[in-house]
Amino acid sequence: MYVIVTYDITDDKRLNKVRKVLKKYLYWCQLSTFEGEISEGKLEKCKSEIFDIINFEEDSIYFFEVKNPKNIVKKVIGIEKNYMDNIL
Amino acid sequence: MYVIVTYDITDDKRLNKVRKVLKKYLYWCQLSTFEGEISEGKLEKCKSEIFDIINFEEDSIYFFEVKNPKNIVKKVIGIEKNYMDNIL
Repeated sequence: MYVIVTYDITDDKRLNKVRKVLKKYLYWCQLSTFEGEISEGKLEKCKSEIFDIINFEEDSIYFFEVKNPKNIVKKVIGIEKNYMDNIL
Repeated sequence: MYVIVTYDITDDKRLNKVRKVLKKYLYWCQLSTFEGEISEGKLEKCKSEIFDIINFEEDSIYFFEVKNPKNIVKKVIGIEKNYMDNIL
């Protein structure tokens, strides 16, 4: 499946931890966005790792899931970014 | 169709202008994310308004487009946010 992950995380320490987890599974394409193809099993693993990090009363993480990657099209205005080389 | 819009905009003035445009068409669901159902015509209008604002060498805006809204599922970890009442 294809997934887009967006997040608002209020604490920098938790933010870095969440990004570290997402980086293992997906492509870091904007400051607050990851995307990529992923199996259902790996996606569940990714979510369970995030469960252990975040504050459920302050943080917000959205997973937009599309079963068939062919059903989603990405269009870019401006530049296409890549944060995958960032050290966390 | 259903669209998710994410952005990295380096200048606060342009950022506010882009958010003002997006707010007219979509739902502001996280600091750097808008989402919602929109017609193709309105989406093109929205994009053309954004074209007139951004710096093409610095800013980055992604439109993730799904023709049939039934093909996309949103799952939330933590809280669901809403910035629609923010004054820009």
